[in-house]
Amino acid sequence: MKTQLIALDWGTSSLRAYWLGAAGETLEERSLPLGIMQLDGSEEGFERALDQACGDWQRTSPEAPMIACGMIGSAQGWGEARYVDVPLGAEELGSSLHAIERACGMPLWVVPGVIQRGDLPDVMRGEETQVFGLLDGDTDHGAPLLIGLPGSHSKWVTADGGKLTQFQTFMTGEVYQALLGHTILGRTAVPSDSFNAAAFERGLRVAQSSEGQAGPLSTIFSSRTLVLTGELSGVAQVDYLSGLLIGHELAAMSAMLQVPPSQPIVLVGNSTLCARYLWALEYCGFESLRFAPEATTAGLWKVAAGAGLVATDTAGESYVSPHARH
Amino acid sequence: MKTQLIALDWGTSSLRAYWLGAAGETLEERSLPLGIMQLDGSEEGFERALDQACGDWQRTSPEAPMIACGMIGSAQGWGEARYVDVPLGAEELGSSLHAIERACGMPLWVVPGVIQRGDLPDVMRGEETQVFGLLDGDTDHGAPLLIGLPGSHSKWVTADGGKLTQFQTFMTGEVYQALLGHTILGRTAVPSDSFNAAAFERGLRVAQSSEGQAGPLSTIFSSRTLVLTGELSGVAQVDYLSGLLIGHELAAMSAMLQVPPSQPIVLVGNSTLCARYLWALEYCGFESLRFAPEATTAGLWKVAAGAGLVATDTAGESYVSPHARH
Repeated sequence: MKTQLIALDWGTSSLRAYWLGAAGETLEERSLPLGIMQLDGSEEGFERALDQACGDWQRTSPEAPMIACGMIGSAQGWGEARYVDVPLGAEELGSSLHAIERACGMPLWVVPGVIQRGDLPDVMRGEETQVFGLLDGDTDHGAPLLIGLPGSHSKWVTADGGKLTQFQTFMTGEVYQALLGHTILGRTAVPSDSFNAAAFERGLRVAQSSEGQAGPLSTIFSSRTLVLTGELSGVAQVDYLSGLLIGHELAAMSAMLQVPPSQPIVLVGNSTLCARYLWALEYCGFESLRFAPEATTAGLWKVAAGAGLVATDTAGESYVSPHARH
Repeated sequence: MKTQLIALDWGTSSLRAYWLGAAGETLEERSLPLGIMQLDGSEEGFERALDQACGDWQRTSPEAPMIACGMIGSAQGWGEARYVDVPLGAEELGSSLHAIERACGMPLWVVPGVIQRGDLPDVMRGEETQVFGLLDGDTDHGAPLLIGLPGSHSKWVTADGGKLTQFQTFMTGEVYQALLGHTILGRTAVPSDSFNAAAFERGLRVAQSSEGQAGPLSTIFSSRTLVLTGELSGVAQVDYLSGLLIGHELAAMSAMLQVPPSQPIVLVGNSTLCARYLWALEYCGFESLRFAPEATTAGLWKVAAGAGLVATDTAGESYVSPHARH
């Protein structure tokens, strides 16, 4: 087996490394808690982390190019890769790679972030690579597709004709964590591994109701008062709050993007979190829903191919991991 | 001078003690960082804090009754004082005081909280006392009054004919602190003592705009992206975020309560925070705005008088601090 590409998904809280073969298939993968926020920001720190993640692959295949996406390309990362404006295709990412020169002579190629300018600028780093990993033959020539990427910062991306045309960020996941960890809401909440579907759906219902018009700054307080009045247990509170916030996100997203119920929607990412969003989307009346697991390696392969870092059978076409077809 | 009443405003983060004279006037006051969250929850801990705050007053005037409002009456406090339902008048608070029996033989009388039942129950502890402190002859017989109490948990209270009839909580202050302290938004923010009015007003404008319809879960991200794109400084980001959240609160509050621009509104509380809310209310087009400083001692006096703990010249009438008339 010959390494064709070392692909990295290097974010805020983790570093995922993939050893990809000649057809873009994953030969081996590793996940380390070496996100940019766990490192000291020095060049030596980044080098050490990289060596820990895939130094042995590099020594085995010193000629294999390396490519990374995510916050590693931010101002707080190893080297700042400038943003590319929407609308854009995978080829614009490939032609705008930022090279971090390294002592070993082999650069680390960093995928640029994406920016949508306007009164409220919006940005992403990493999700653009997932989006292009997801867009393959069966989806990128049809009607506009709405892609949801739930996470600390959920992104809702519109793709049309193989291009990423617009997107909107909701800080739902990070707000949820901050509320439970650092406000009075956490005092009554009891973390649990189980999922309380009734509480989650109650949160969704409130967010969609006339009382939900008060917005999350107000409705979140009910996740405390329902416990005080004995209507929710501390365990149920956690899923109620989750449903409430996701419900507010979806209500705002569908109003802002004027999404009809028939709009095809694909969710990509962590399966547990995507399951919640699928539930919520269905509850909100959306009819055409699909789930696709992480598509980052497929995206990195596609961008690397577009940049000529790897050879592909057909110029301009790229291999997409079978994962992304589910 | 003879102590007529020892009045306590005992909340989550502080304990304020007031030594009140025969006409309800403040003879002396103290503020200590001995809120219920700074204490260990034991009876001894509460006794020690009380002694620290006003043990000398008690020894000087052992016959003076003691009354307290705030979170000290919550389940996490010294003794749980049950909630009274809206609508209610000061007399219902006075007739529902909760006695915490103490070894010294002198009970601590605790003002009950207020609850508004419904699909989304809402509660307050402490603010009800401020509201009744504020309601005096010139306001409690006219048209309904909207009272805003900005804080960690802002309360918007409607008072009509001397009664507290309805209210709504927004966790704006606590969310603001959690976002700056515990999310990525804090990474670029630079705390400062100065107030950047332009940034604050920009936040208000966004919250009221069509883009503000995306709701705070989305718009707050712009407080980061505007720094990334060089449109806001890190110092300005803090006031922009403040304007954004207060703007979302006011937009939701006025929609929920269907408040016309001519609605008389009184803001009560901390003057710095109230100044921001007055600015924001004016920006939103409200025409009849007033500010009143903290009215807790006046409220505690009124409730104590209603409960017969203190003698007043005219039965049923109570002294209101001149502060509350501004």
